[in-house]
Amino acid sequence: MKKIKRLVDHIISRVNVNLKPIGRDVEKSVRQSIRTDKLTKYYAYYALSIGHPWYFRFQESNLGGTYFLGKCEVDRSVVLMSDIRGDELKPKGAVVSFGGLETELYQDEIIQVVSSFLIKTLVHNHSRNSEIPEYFRILNTVAMHYSNIHGTTTEGAYLGAFATADLSVLHNCALGDFAYVQAGDLSRASIRSGRVWIRQSGKFEFDYAHDPEVIDRYVTFDEAGQLSGVFSDFVKGRRSDFLPMYDSLAFESPVAIPDGAFLSRYAVVKGDTCLGENSLVAQRAYLENAQLGKGSNAQENCFIVDSQLEGLDVVAHGGKLIHTMLGKKVFVGFNSFLYGESDRKISVGAGTIVMPHTIIDAQEPINIPEDFLVWGYIQTQADLEGHSMSLNDFAKQRTVRRGNLVFEGDGAAFIEGFRARIDHILLENGACYDGKKQTRGHAQRTQSVSYNLFQPYLAGEEEAMFPAIVVGNR
Amino acid sequence: MKKIKRLVDHIISRVNVNLKPIGRDVEKSVRQSIRTDKLTKYYAYYALSIGHPWYFRFQESNLGGTYFLGKCEVDRSVVLMSDIRGDELKPKGAVVSFGGLETELYQDEIIQVVSSFLIKTLVHNHSRNSEIPEYFRILNTVAMHYSNIHGTTTEGAYLGAFATADLSVLHNCALGDFAYVQAGDLSRASIRSGRVWIRQSGKFEFDYAHDPEVIDRYVTFDEAGQLSGVFSDFVKGRRSDFLPMYDSLAFESPVAIPDGAFLSRYAVVKGDTCLGENSLVAQRAYLENAQLGKGSNAQENCFIVDSQLEGLDVVAHGGKLIHTMLGKKVFVGFNSFLYGESDRKISVGAGTIVMPHTIIDAQEPINIPEDFLVWGYIQTQADLEGHSMSLNDFAKQRTVRRGNLVFEGDGAAFIEGFRARIDHILLENGACYDGKKQTRGHAQRTQSVSYNLFQPYLAGEEEAMFPAIVVGNR
Repeated sequence: MKKIKRLVDHIISRVNVNLKPIGRDVEKSVRQSIRTDKLTKYYAYYALSIGHPWYFRFQESNLGGTYFLGKCEVDRSVVLMSDIRGDELKPKGAVVSFGGLETELYQDEIIQVVSSFLIKTLVHNHSRNSEIPEYFRILNTVAMHYSNIHGTTTEGAYLGAFATADLSVLHNCALGDFAYVQAGDLSRASIRSGRVWIRQSGKFEFDYAHDPEVIDRYVTFDEAGQLSGVFSDFVKGRRSDFLPMYDSLAFESPVAIPDGAFLSRYAVVKGDTCLGENSLVAQRAYLENAQLGKGSNAQENCFIVDSQLEGLDVVAHGGKLIHTMLGKKVFVGFNSFLYGESDRKISVGAGTIVMPHTIIDAQEPINIPEDFLVWGYIQTQADLEGHSMSLNDFAKQRTVRRGNLVFEGDGAAFIEGFRARIDHILLENGACYDGKKQTRGHAQRTQSVSYNLFQPYLAGEEEAMFPAIVVGNR
Repeated sequence: MKKIKRLVDHIISRVNVNLKPIGRDVEKSVRQSIRTDKLTKYYAYYALSIGHPWYFRFQESNLGGTYFLGKCEVDRSVVLMSDIRGDELKPKGAVVSFGGLETELYQDEIIQVVSSFLIKTLVHNHSRNSEIPEYFRILNTVAMHYSNIHGTTTEGAYLGAFATADLSVLHNCALGDFAYVQAGDLSRASIRSGRVWIRQSGKFEFDYAHDPEVIDRYVTFDEAGQLSGVFSDFVKGRRSDFLPMYDSLAFESPVAIPDGAFLSRYAVVKGDTCLGENSLVAQRAYLENAQLGKGSNAQENCFIVDSQLEGLDVVAHGGKLIHTMLGKKVFVGFNSFLYGESDRKISVGAGTIVMPHTIIDAQEPINIPEDFLVWGYIQTQADLEGHSMSLNDFAKQRTVRRGNLVFEGDGAAFIEGFRARIDHILLENGACYDGKKQTRGHAQRTQSVSYNLFQPYLAGEEEAMFPAIVVGNR
């Protein structure tokens, strides 16, 4: 185990060099999240997809339980039970635009994870790195349980549990638990837990702060490195359903997979579940008594239980729906938690946008109208008053101050930005596939995928280190 | 499937260029052995052993169902359901001796399979290549079902079903079905089916020929590429027992594994089976109601059914024992078939050597004394008369002519050579491990092994081609 110990020390030192100046010491979080006995327990795996260019190079790392898709390099890192999903990497020759200036990629874009520690983290590319658009880089970064690194270069960063860094570039930044940022380039920023912050410089700024008591109840990451609270209790209760799937190589879908739909063999499907055409169920998604209408998708770490999705619904990474009905084309943002019960269901009208990191913990039946924007923390129908607004009304605002929300700027641009993004997601996922090539997306392109499995050394000095592997051509 | 078709054409052309001059055309055998629909069905796997140096590089090949151990490179080949077992590769700096002249290895020895087609073949190294001892090379070679390439460089070679090339160098040679050669360097030789030929130049020559009717009954490889006969019927009847093992990643041994013993998780173990200390059961071995005494071993493609091995017994690759009792330190050579029934058991006395490719198909109980040499085809106790001799007597001979056997030369050297080899095998396998480092062998060194699995492309032009992979450092 000598080598893995040195590796962990190395990562801590690299991250702390960058984060101590902003008052963050990652040593405890990292050490206490690594269960040494588990480092040899899980295999890592990568997909050979014929629909995506791929290349993998792994060295001097532990990658237990992690899944890779696309083009990825991992050096001197510990990446545990995470998803490194490079299915939107840009090809050589693609033209990218930054602030109106265009430049062309001189090689295929690649995800690089270097000197980092990620645990149960979702990494989905679509880079915003204007310095080297060829690299989607996660460098000297620590990302805790169920965090999302999405379209975000992170160089010297800490992401707390259930935190999301979205479409940004982070240099020496720390995000508290359940914090969400989509704020362009950030440097030496420390974002407190439960803040939901979206900023487009010169255009708008959406800034919501969950109350500290709410964060305490839903996400607690204590000094001893123990994650607790409602979110993790919910997830832990269903963890054992995932295990048999990883022990077996044979796969038979428990439900019919209609034309154009994709069900990952690493998703859990239980009860009375059915999938519509062109729907996409990513790996590590959990469906139980779930009806997914045509073109709907359930991303990584989603839980859809006793719920119906009418169609073209997007449940972003980590979204959870329990006893929830979604009308058509509803968007449920990252790590949102919509928790109903059979006697107090949640229904969300067509076209509504549930902001990332929204909590709806229904104490009574809750009905959300069509074409609304919903945010924050909602327990009753009355709570909606202070935590939602029709999209049309929001588009007319220059300032919104309601409870913990401060919005300033161009409401129309904010709403339009969201709508465009939802359309982009549906397009990328192949939700509207009609047999023509230009409508193909992830659901269609990931069909003929095979998985290669690899494990660490089980004993000796290199115990828990994964072998150096190169697959395919750069 | 375009690429795999081109690959098969390529291999056929390379082998035929070398073998047509000696009258062998491999095209039919190769094409008819490849079931296109199966080329995407099986994963390949390699071991990360901490007891053996390893390195793997695979490119432009299909490797369905094949296992790799050690240092191996495969280029432009189809290697199906085979074992490429490089656990006796020599390290850099090792001194090898050829005809009394010594030379030192300038790098670690590596197995190279190039432009070849192997199916259900066992490759076990321990090279005899005086030209480049750093390479154990299988080049432009076709090896059919259950053949063994053992310590043998093959450059332009055809091995029929159940054929064995042992401790030799073959240049442009063809071995018929169930032929066995251990005859130094051979060039442009065509060995007929069922011949068992051991030659040490200037010392001795052992030459046995199975009757053509016997070969027809036990191994038939017909024009249509169908393998039939007693051997393949026997093997096919037990094939389904192997399948669940490959579908599951979890492994729990069905029997106790005593100190120093090794049981591959890819061996079948059924019924009332027990393993002694320091015993070794290689992958693709099949044990059913088998008692393996201390230090015994069952190599790849062995079947040990309703049989007892007292201890220090060696069952070489492909050896089959049914209702057979082995006394201590019995050697059963490659692909030997000892078939008893409950009312006509076979017993083999301690110290006896059963020559490679021996068939004992008991029509009545058969008892073979201690310290005997046994060869050929035996059905009754009376048959032993013409197919065995005490080792002491044999050692005194200069000529033996009995039935289909012609032996000429130094009987003592022949017997001593065999004994030395058996001791070498026991040593290499760790049969006499006593806790000290110098007594460790394969049984002990393969303990902490993990397996990486990899699959081919499942669709598109590259369908059935495996991805290019490099694992570890050369």
